[in-house]
Amino acid sequence: MIDPRVASGLRDVPPSVMIPRERMLAAFRRTFGSFGFVPIETPHIERMEVLTGKGAGSDEVLRQIFEVTNKGGTPGELALRFDLTVPLARFVARHVEELGVPFKRYAIGSVFRGERPAKGRFREFTQCDFDTVGTISSLSDAEIIQVIHSSLSAIDVPAFTISLNNRQILNSFLHKFGLGRWTLHVLRAIDKLDKIGREAVIAELTKAPAVLNPDELPEDDDEKQLVELGATRESFHGRPPIAQLSGLDESQARQILDFVEQGRGGREVLDRLDKSYNIDPGYGVTNLREILELLDASGVPASCYRIDLSLARGLDYYTGVVFETKVDGWEKYGSVCSGGRYDSLASLFTKRVLPGVGASIGLDRLLALMDEAGWLKGTSTTAPVLVANFPGGDPPTYARLAARLREAGIGAEVFPDAFQIGKQMGYGSSRGHKLAVIVGPDEQGKQVFNLRDLTTRKEQKAIAWSELETAVASALAGAGE
Amino acid sequence: MIDPRVASGLRDVPPSVMIPRERMLAAFRRTFGSFGFVPIETPHIERMEVLTGKGAGSDEVLRQIFEVTNKGGTPGELALRFDLTVPLARFVARHVEELGVPFKRYAIGSVFRGERPAKGRFREFTQCDFDTVGTISSLSDAEIIQVIHSSLSAIDVPAFTISLNNRQILNSFLHKFGLGRWTLHVLRAIDKLDKIGREAVIAELTKAPAVLNPDELPEDDDEKQLVELGATRESFHGRPPIAQLSGLDESQARQILDFVEQGRGGREVLDRLDKSYNIDPGYGVTNLREILELLDASGVPASCYRIDLSLARGLDYYTGVVFETKVDGWEKYGSVCSGGRYDSLASLFTKRVLPGVGASIGLDRLLALMDEAGWLKGTSTTAPVLVANFPGGDPPTYARLAARLREAGIGAEVFPDAFQIGKQMGYGSSRGHKLAVIVGPDEQGKQVFNLRDLTTRKEQKAIAWSELETAVASALAGAGE
Repeated sequence: MIDPRVASGLRDVPPSVMIPRERMLAAFRRTFGSFGFVPIETPHIERMEVLTGKGAGSDEVLRQIFEVTNKGGTPGELALRFDLTVPLARFVARHVEELGVPFKRYAIGSVFRGERPAKGRFREFTQCDFDTVGTISSLSDAEIIQVIHSSLSAIDVPAFTISLNNRQILNSFLHKFGLGRWTLHVLRAIDKLDKIGREAVIAELTKAPAVLNPDELPEDDDEKQLVELGATRESFHGRPPIAQLSGLDESQARQILDFVEQGRGGREVLDRLDKSYNIDPGYGVTNLREILELLDASGVPASCYRIDLSLARGLDYYTGVVFETKVDGWEKYGSVCSGGRYDSLASLFTKRVLPGVGASIGLDRLLALMDEAGWLKGTSTTAPVLVANFPGGDPPTYARLAARLREAGIGAEVFPDAFQIGKQMGYGSSRGHKLAVIVGPDEQGKQVFNLRDLTTRKEQKAIAWSELETAVASALAGAGE
Repeated sequence: MIDPRVASGLRDVPPSVMIPRERMLAAFRRTFGSFGFVPIETPHIERMEVLTGKGAGSDEVLRQIFEVTNKGGTPGELALRFDLTVPLARFVARHVEELGVPFKRYAIGSVFRGERPAKGRFREFTQCDFDTVGTISSLSDAEIIQVIHSSLSAIDVPAFTISLNNRQILNSFLHKFGLGRWTLHVLRAIDKLDKIGREAVIAELTKAPAVLNPDELPEDDDEKQLVELGATRESFHGRPPIAQLSGLDESQARQILDFVEQGRGGREVLDRLDKSYNIDPGYGVTNLREILELLDASGVPASCYRIDLSLARGLDYYTGVVFETKVDGWEKYGSVCSGGRYDSLASLFTKRVLPGVGASIGLDRLLALMDEAGWLKGTSTTAPVLVANFPGGDPPTYARLAARLREAGIGAEVFPDAFQIGKQMGYGSSRGHKLAVIVGPDEQGKQVFNLRDLTTRKEQKAIAWSELETAVASALAGAGE
């Protein structure tokens, strides 16, 4: 006998989770489609080179790659994708000429990371991404936020808040104070604000930076210059830190915190920026103003979003608007849908500049949250009606009645074996069937059926077969009450 | 620059294929669910031992396995699944106690085989399986056939034929003539009847068999006995052939062909069996009679199925009913949905005997067929309406109008950039948008819009914004005519 377990960090998804998950994904697909986003699928297996190209994934993600080989294949050539963004970049670079831009796609699929297994952390998990590529229009920024709003509304999340920011606002502020090259260091630190609090972020800012903004570093001979600056650059060229640099002054750090923390709210945050800080509003503020106007026009209620100048999003590649979404009252779960605008998606694969904006729904996290909140209707069946198989009864009748119910749009399952009725009813209740249709030999002769509510155990007796669809539909409307 | 190609034998699925595919899968999921089949998902990565256990896959499939390793992992421990049946067996063995039986599941997902790449043959492809485990009832056999019928009807395949047989019928026939141990050899040969014709099958039958029926071989000391019999047994223990055995007599071969070829049609085939051959009808015939009665009762038209005694299905593990489905007029594509009953699904993983019946839809094949037949509505968009972004116009108005259409259940996409209108209309036509809503500065002032049919290029002018939903809905009803 072979042990039927799955490998460490992997999991089977049972019907009780898959049923709400499929319902959720169907709602998302409908929503994405209604905005003109189209589905694509790329292989789970990519060429290694595509996945490990400079900047494709963080060092941590690259260490977690699963290599794939078959007999006769060359080791090290293929691997499993670790996200859906790198495959999108490759896809767009390969097909942009025939597809044209703007290209709005969604993709739902498994990605793989050889992380150390832990509770709630898996080596295979589902990503659900939607992106608009090939335009810098604020319309497409606002549209991504609309899609988040419509998607979460479509699955009946009662209340949530989408936080918005634009990276350029902090950039402008830092530039004004001559701190431009610290941008990434600052973004990484304030990204932790919610988790570690103000004082710890200030401590972080005053420590030596792990990363500086390459756009602000001297272009020529930059290795030498870096040594002079004492910078460390772990993530730009994958080299170890070349020197240590002290962090920001504490007063600078506090000034930055004051700036980002004063800004949580609606339009007034943007109005205040101008008055209190007198910085050039530039593209960042204009973009947010346009987004707010478009959200208003599209009927997204102002209660669903807010500006948050402290929102940084750790990923280094966002360059414009960034957003994240928390479910009200369930903030401990973190963001269930995050994303932002990037300058160039596919620069690894093409010289064509392809800016875009997109977001990713954390499907597993959202499911876990909704489960804990009691918002998923627990069921292990997709068909509300169980047609019993009465011992000594007539199976073709059961098949006929079930087919009629399905024809009327009501899911119906026939129990395959003529077991004791109590056992069949137990099966029905445990799966979450709402009603049972029962036809014993007596009922067969009279062409009637009994209809049992599997929750309340109440039974209506001797309903004529001709009344099947109406009786079941009206019982379903009130089932379990 | 990294070349954005995919690895050999893999492919990107573009929106023009994904859109009909998603529509198809949604129809299948609805159909499966209406019969009480529930979705499960298992990991793409399984433990190697699970995939290569005796009998899990044919030698050919095992040679094509993709091995998976990550840093720190043990080589040879993990691999990508090559079908959804082995994972179902493992899943059921692992979870049967909590799930109970009957267990009716469907699963849709990618499987991987390192086949030599060829036109239309890929190393990653989608399987779409549904099975009922834990019952031997004819109701569950008939139900699988009903699901095939409902699924293909749901995606508007105009006419198709489901061929049915039961393995036991040929078994009874062979036993009667003392040819029981030749069963598998015979099944494999007649499985090729459609492809290679009668005479070639007879030649095949009279050649040395690659495989004999293990149930009919002596149990003790069977290696020695096999040598005595001269049998070859490539697939039972993965050993090379140990000897050669001459095939059936030509007269026996002709008798077998006569038997299987006389039987294509309805109930009369079963009636004739008794009269002409006087073999014990046994379970095989009873089962087919019950299935036919249940299909009648369920309203599956008799024109959609037929008995075919020559239907063998190559896979050795089917033990009862077998079926395959061809689209009328498109038989050259082969079967688009096949399956059958097996005695014990999970014997590799559990001592519990779990009989079952199931089928698999060949999604890629079906899509290719429907594409060639012109049955797919060609489109690269999920939203029928494009709201143009008029140069100098008012984007919030476009966002508002599009949101109203979506609210009314009509998918609408706003073009993100204020490009020349001709360019936007070109984009709309090429994607398959049916209508364009256009509001220039003039229309903005008058609160009206123009509605262009992107197929006929006819334009209705100056419709009031208040008429948006009704005007678009009625234009869509007649769009492109």
